[in-house]
Amino acid sequence: MSASRRGGPIGPTGPVVGRALQLLDAFSPDHRELSLSELARRASMPLSTAHRLVHELCAWGAVERGGDGLYRIGLRLWEIGSLAPRGAGLREVALPFLEDLSRSTGENAQLAVREGMELVFVERIAGSRAVPVLTRVGGRFALTATGVGLVLLAHAAVEVQEEVLSGPFERYTSKTVTDPVQLRRMLAAVRSNGFSVSDRQVTMDALSVGAPIRDGRGEVVAAVSLVVRHGSATPRPLAWLVRTSAQAISRALAG
Amino acid sequence: MSASRRGGPIGPTGPVVGRALQLLDAFSPDHRELSLSELARRASMPLSTAHRLVHELCAWGAVERGGDGLYRIGLRLWEIGSLAPRGAGLREVALPFLEDLSRSTGENAQLAVREGMELVFVERIAGSRAVPVLTRVGGRFALTATGVGLVLLAHAAVEVQEEVLSGPFERYTSKTVTDPVQLRRMLAAVRSNGFSVSDRQVTMDALSVGAPIRDGRGEVVAAVSLVVRHGSATPRPLAWLVRTSAQAISRALAG
Repeated sequence: MSASRRGGPIGPTGPVVGRALQLLDAFSPDHRELSLSELARRASMPLSTAHRLVHELCAWGAVERGGDGLYRIGLRLWEIGSLAPRGAGLREVALPFLEDLSRSTGENAQLAVREGMELVFVERIAGSRAVPVLTRVGGRFALTATGVGLVLLAHAAVEVQEEVLSGPFERYTSKTVTDPVQLRRMLAAVRSNGFSVSDRQVTMDALSVGAPIRDGRGEVVAAVSLVVRHGSATPRPLAWLVRTSAQAISRALAG
Repeated sequence: MSASRRGGPIGPTGPVVGRALQLLDAFSPDHRELSLSELARRASMPLSTAHRLVHELCAWGAVERGGDGLYRIGLRLWEIGSLAPRGAGLREVALPFLEDLSRSTGENAQLAVREGMELVFVERIAGSRAVPVLTRVGGRFALTATGVGLVLLAHAAVEVQEEVLSGPFERYTSKTVTDPVQLRRMLAAVRSNGFSVSDRQVTMDALSVGAPIRDGRGEVVAAVSLVVRHGSATPRPLAWLVRTSAQAISRALAG
């Protein structure tokens, strides 16, 4: 998502803070090390501006400059980021339950939250027999294709659902559902059944079943899923298992 | 560490970026949720300034405001922080080796890097028989007491060693070494032996043995340790194990 899309109106302190944060947006999983000129280009700002801002980011530790002259996200930002309740906080509470889920099945257990019109994977535990998946911790994904995404979308505000359902849709396989009418039916089923099913919607060999995690006030704040090889199990017994896990995590979050 | 201590000279764009980052410093493991007035007070800035800056931080997603009106570190900051090579990047590479270390012994395996005059724990795997430890992922600790800290200090630049050895020293138990002459001898031993020993220096029931992790250029970038109950094992065989793990992680980092 671009900085301009996430940026709000510019405050009375001027656009400097926003521009500094825009520099951080230049980093991505595929661009973890950047030269100053790459930073400036990717953040669409003059080299001199990027130079001044990166200096301030380095002073605090948000960015670090290596012996090779390249810039990287700094340890201090990772430290502060680890205080995010929806990131590391949630992960810490959920981790033992995800490990149980993955160990008892040998499959992939995934934990995700919604961020705007996408989901972010907060944790993934790879099982010993696990089918290959496309996810990465900290990575983003469309809400409409995965088990966790369908849960998060089914419980999102109406405006979010409308915007997502207005498309465009990511298509990963020939089974990826991209028809808004069919998606609406699937979301209604998620709400009434208490679980989601993504059948070969992301890769042709995977089936995932997701369930909602609720906070102390009963609001859906995250989703957990189990991803198994297509054909190895029917959704219903997987749903019992995943819902039980989701309820245990919800209880731990509330406590 | 306070913003003023880490802050560099203020650039030509003015102090706005520094002040915004100073607001983030108000969050800590013990202060994960803050009201606007707590934010302003902890960051030592007027309420009106804090209000303007927090608005810009929220627009980008560095900070989130809950339904209860309290501010928290945002998921976006966690996402960007997960791109820090010395944080999540290192953790990802080291995790399988830490799990092996912890599973084969039933004890705690720890991974840390140096940040200024302290260490930061990047991961901790609790073993099934593990002795209680004081560490938390993302938490800071003195360099002079733990197995990982002694490794990181032994391989730090001379200026860092001199500043740390000029004190003051954290004292956790009656066994915590706080004599600079004795510490210098211990650091020399770490360099010549290739491992560190912290014997009841943090808690009276724990012994930890640490070893250095090196990057592709041979520089020490992190340390791994095993923490066992005091009296349950002698340091030398633990050192063989931990050094072997550290070498495997170094090889994986270089590859």
